Amino acid sequence: MQRLSRLYGLFALLMLAPLLGVAAEPLPSWYDGASRQAIVRFVTAVTEVGGKDYVAQPERIAVFDNDGTLWSEQPMYFEVLFALDEVRRLAPQHPEWKTQQPFKAVLAGDQKALAATGMDGLLKIVAATHSDVSTEQFIARTRQWLASAVHPKTGKPYTEMVFQPMLELLDYLRANGFKTYIVSGGEVAFMRAFAEEVYGIPPEQVIGTTLEARFQDTGGKYSIVRSPKLLHNDDGPGKPVSIDSIIGRRPILAFGNSDGDLQMLQWTTAGNGLRFAGLVHHTDARREWAYDRQSKVGRLDKALTAARDNGWTVVDMAREWQRIYPFDSNKDQ
Amino acid sequence: MQRLSRLYGLFALLMLAPLLGVAAEPLPSWYDGASRQAIVRFVTAVTEVGGKDYVAQPERIAVFDNDGTLWSEQPMYFEVLFALDEVRRLAPQHPEWKTQQPFKAVLAGDQKALAATGMDGLLKIVAATHSDVSTEQFIARTRQWLASAVHPKTGKPYTEMVFQPMLELLDYLRANGFKTYIVSGGEVAFMRAFAEEVYGIPPEQVIGTTLEARFQDTGGKYSIVRSPKLLHNDDGPGKPVSIDSIIGRRPILAFGNSDGDLQMLQWTTAGNGLRFAGLVHHTDARREWAYDRQSKVGRLDKALTAARDNGWTVVDMAREWQRIYPFDSNKDQ
Repeated sequence: MQRLSRLYGLFALLMLAPLLGVAAEPLPSWYDGASRQAIVRFVTAVTEVGGKDYVAQPERIAVFDNDGTLWSEQPMYFEVLFALDEVRRLAPQHPEWKTQQPFKAVLAGDQKALAATGMDGLLKIVAATHSDVSTEQFIARTRQWLASAVHPKTGKPYTEMVFQPMLELLDYLRANGFKTYIVSGGEVAFMRAFAEEVYGIPPEQVIGTTLEARFQDTGGKYSIVRSPKLLHNDDGPGKPVSIDSIIGRRPILAFGNSDGDLQMLQWTTAGNGLRFAGLVHHTDARREWAYDRQSKVGRLDKALTAARDNGWTVVDMAREWQRIYPFDSNKDQ
Repeated sequence: MQRLSRLYGLFALLMLAPLLGVAAEPLPSWYDGASRQAIVRFVTAVTEVGGKDYVAQPERIAVFDNDGTLWSEQPMYFEVLFALDEVRRLAPQHPEWKTQQPFKAVLAGDQKALAATGMDGLLKIVAATHSDVSTEQFIARTRQWLASAVHPKTGKPYTEMVFQPMLELLDYLRANGFKTYIVSGGEVAFMRAFAEEVYGIPPEQVIGTTLEARFQDTGGKYSIVRSPKLLHNDDGPGKPVSIDSIIGRRPILAFGNSDGDLQMLQWTTAGNGLRFAGLVHHTDARREWAYDRQSKVGRLDKALTAARDNGWTVVDMAREWQRIYPFDSNKDQ
């Protein structure tokens, strides 16, 4: 009877907890390791009114890379997989692609010939599939693709291959008065097609690579039409530059996963006061992928060295994350 | 006695009003004319839950031009006056300017020779005074200038020559869940130097003309250094382009005062649902300036015609504003 009443008391406490304002533990998909502790310590310090590290709410700017930081990026950046699918979808309107590289290789499924076209070929594919279209139409195309395409390895929609621990981190920061931004090499409209629904990040807090665009007036019908010309490459040193240009404040927290995030982390941590820099280290070949210094996609080499030199937080995915994706139902598979 | 108690009742009501949540009348410096009525009607309609014109709060984006819309712009854009003062301040470090136009004309106070250098001369002056400096240093320089420079006609600091009715409009919109942005031809860091303090608009909601910039690492010291090269001219068709690129949502309200705002107003009003487009018409030669179709600064010609064709709100400054500047103590001088 005593035991039963103790159980009942526990049950009552659990039911009452939300009413009493007892907060659930933050970051439930993170093991209580060094990274989780560093995050909680930082957030507690900058939000403690009167504390020496207190940061006023408007200055609580947090920036996140997207590919490899908020969602997976293997075997290739998902936006590139989108562009390849778009080449196939748009091919009937471009008979010339049958004989032009890199399009010919894509349409023939010739991986070797495609790889031989290199970065130049890739840029041509991105330009052809991302331009001569209004922003609104492009976002609609992206959404159409996201609604039906599935990942070659997991068979899941790409928007489900987001990192559950990072979704919890975004929520935890926002609950503590942070404004969360994406600052990514991905093209900005591509990311806006899903960032609000998937990450809770509104369009005006998504910063990315941009193409030149023009305002088009066709007899009183207006649209913004994208050109194939790159305006800003939001990678590496381009990240602090776009942060300065678009946000106009220096972040106090930055999270990335590759050498393309190095300058963003340097810029963030060089500010006055307490700062946080984090890297997602892909160490889990079983549940996700394992890669770093040698990888062609999302190479993490210089930034990993910088993290160790500067005491930045390096998240060991395999050891520190109980779950990887939201669809992982078991805490540890 | 009855009269006294009635007075007392009125007094008690006035005292209680704030406690009862009775809002003060919005836009007190606006006469109750067509413009004020159109603004209040619009804001009431888009905020009425369940109403046919209701707009969810995140979509309540309002964009404002700066020069001539939020503050004065005569006899010349204030940023140009800043650049001219900067040429004089920086001259000792540039002995070559003594013999080079347009700098020679500025230093000699030769208005005619300066005017003869035209737009090319102006761009050279802006480039020379706005680049080869970090964003942080540039903002500090701007603030230093704003703290001491005064306007040649009013003798007032430039940041006091803001329009009291527009400050009230910004407040009124924010109180109704709008996010207020500046979208202006002014250079973005110049405006960020005062926008938060003067307009209550934070840095991340200021959009403007941008220069190319680079991330500079000098032995572990990091800065963003501005180049003299124009990256984006935020005027005319450049305004909807930057709105689309940076905000990623179409505004529901836009306010400007010149032909440089035409495309922003077209883009805003072409969206679905109820939209508001407004123009400040400078009609008050006594209290401010009177100019429109013939003016070199802030020309309002095509946009005025478009406003009349499309039923946009044109604010007749002389007739519709009780006060112009915050320092106008009398309601109507």
